[in-house]
Amino acid sequence: MTERIHNFNAGPAALPLPVLEQIQAELLNFNQSGMSILEVSHRSKWFEDVLDDAIARIKRLLRLDERYHVLFLQGGASLQFSMIPMNLGAADQPLDYVDTGTWASKAIKEAQILCKPARVIASSADREYTYIPRSIPIDDQAAYLHLTSNNTIRGTQWRSFPASGQVPIVCDMSSDIFSRVFDPTSFGLIYAGAQKNAGAAGVTLVIVRDDMLERVPDSLPTMLKYTTFVGKKSMYNTPPCFAIYVVQLVAKWVEETVGGLDKMAAINDKKAELLYGYLDSQNFFRGTAEPGSRSSMNVTFRLPTPELEKQFIEQSLAAGLVGLKGHRSVGGCRASLYNAVTLAAVQVLVDFMKEFLRKNG
Amino acid sequence: MTERIHNFNAGPAALPLPVLEQIQAELLNFNQSGMSILEVSHRSKWFEDVLDDAIARIKRLLRLDERYHVLFLQGGASLQFSMIPMNLGAADQPLDYVDTGTWASKAIKEAQILCKPARVIASSADREYTYIPRSIPIDDQAAYLHLTSNNTIRGTQWRSFPASGQVPIVCDMSSDIFSRVFDPTSFGLIYAGAQKNAGAAGVTLVIVRDDMLERVPDSLPTMLKYTTFVGKKSMYNTPPCFAIYVVQLVAKWVEETVGGLDKMAAINDKKAELLYGYLDSQNFFRGTAEPGSRSSMNVTFRLPTPELEKQFIEQSLAAGLVGLKGHRSVGGCRASLYNAVTLAAVQVLVDFMKEFLRKNG
Repeated sequence: MTERIHNFNAGPAALPLPVLEQIQAELLNFNQSGMSILEVSHRSKWFEDVLDDAIARIKRLLRLDERYHVLFLQGGASLQFSMIPMNLGAADQPLDYVDTGTWASKAIKEAQILCKPARVIASSADREYTYIPRSIPIDDQAAYLHLTSNNTIRGTQWRSFPASGQVPIVCDMSSDIFSRVFDPTSFGLIYAGAQKNAGAAGVTLVIVRDDMLERVPDSLPTMLKYTTFVGKKSMYNTPPCFAIYVVQLVAKWVEETVGGLDKMAAINDKKAELLYGYLDSQNFFRGTAEPGSRSSMNVTFRLPTPELEKQFIEQSLAAGLVGLKGHRSVGGCRASLYNAVTLAAVQVLVDFMKEFLRKNG
Repeated sequence: MTERIHNFNAGPAALPLPVLEQIQAELLNFNQSGMSILEVSHRSKWFEDVLDDAIARIKRLLRLDERYHVLFLQGGASLQFSMIPMNLGAADQPLDYVDTGTWASKAIKEAQILCKPARVIASSADREYTYIPRSIPIDDQAAYLHLTSNNTIRGTQWRSFPASGQVPIVCDMSSDIFSRVFDPTSFGLIYAGAQKNAGAAGVTLVIVRDDMLERVPDSLPTMLKYTTFVGKKSMYNTPPCFAIYVVQLVAKWVEETVGGLDKMAAINDKKAELLYGYLDSQNFFRGTAEPGSRSSMNVTFRLPTPELEKQFIEQSLAAGLVGLKGHRSVGGCRASLYNAVTLAAVQVLVDFMKEFLRKNG
């Protein structure tokens, strides 16, 4: 058996080792049930306790007040791209989007497929999505303002969120949820595929504010209405039980082992500073995101030539560092520093980069 | 730690112990990757091998020819209730449904929500869904004929499927897929939530025939079109990797350990014969499904009084038999005898029933 490696995957991604160890330890007999968590009924006390605990922890971690509902859906952020305009896009109001890269663009496209009045009110397409737009023209008439808090492919992140006045922010936080502290009160809906910072692939967190639910049209299919999930506590039908259990364990790890989101954010800042600090200290590796828009979750960089990038990725794999290849749509390199990636792992990466530069620079 | 118990849950349900043991053994290091299966990229060779193997095994087990695509979706059978009429319900053709209970009724309701011309062409509502209708009036003009192959709540099952001529059968096989051999050629689409016979909750199998894809309207949201999943081999976005992995292991177990669907079906028949044989041998426990329509997967029965049923369920739990309570909508008792439930476990149940009768009869 090989050792566990350093995992810089963009998602699915590294999970905290204590979480994996707990899953392994109780896989044949969950909580004295005599069954695996994979075998217990979703209507059983065993699973309901998992679900309730996951919801309570997420509410505490994100400091959500009683207006917010924590839901567990399926279909990934990609299904939310459609469900959001279906559910929250009232008839005549414009749907305002900021286009900060691939996933934001896909969200806009799905609103357009539904023939909704989606508008791009700001974009960083002019410089290959390497920055977060500064000036966001808020229109009070908009049904919502859609943002992508962290752009996994381009390595950019909203360091703070725009003041949106009365317009509720709807935000795809798939790649930075639980990575830092923010004030949720201006958000009408937050969604996140779990497979980066919140757990494993197979469940999508949706956090929705009460007043948003009034907009949900009665005419939607049952499984595409947020109200269905609110009314049945995500159990209208069988939920993705195991994926919810992993989210619960990850939330517990952030709360109890790490010590909360403040501490998690401080660790994430240190990791990002270490890697960006190195990127800025030499001219061989070159960060692609503009400094004021850099993501603390996905650090994108290039080497002098595609050939060197290929060698770098091959040699990193041989050295036990996985996931450093950039997204296939943009090339280059990317290190994802999600919550479960340790500072020590980032140090190993930086040391490897130094050594690679020494040999090839 | 308590021992593992006998699990008669209706779903999520028992999984084969060797499958659980393999998941446990490789949870920290999947296939020498140095990562958990929960952490590997869905674009990695590690996961692609899992996906390809799952597809190949399902095709072999169900004897699907090259016209059929095996897809992995999310949202459960409940989302399929909407996706089927959206994708396959051509403009003016009637959508024909047979109403054999709760899940069939829900499928019909979702077609109606979409304002599609759904018709109930046969029903067993007149006798509380205790049987499968014999005479199915096939209309060549119908876009499809929708059936629910096994009715989990009422304990009935289509023992054979009606001759549908040129009308493709669309079938919810959530609770009996992989339990028996059938000829798939008259089926245009088969779907099944995995959490009963095929794996754990969190993935929905959809098996769709090539000619059905020509009906899919371009105007549908990307994540609600079968063509999206066919074109990208279920990886347009991050699929529910772990749930697919469990399906792969279960399919491997059916193929290699059990020896294929013929042998699986023979074992399932033995289990059902043992329990129905006992039900028919005395007058205290009474099967609720009509004999010609009995399910080999879900055996529903009543005791003389609700009070005795309550005692039976309580005492069964104390004896290490879980999941014998009937669905909350109908009450009574139910033993689900899915593939992973052993003949030995059914014998334990029958012995427990005999003992209960001796004390309370």
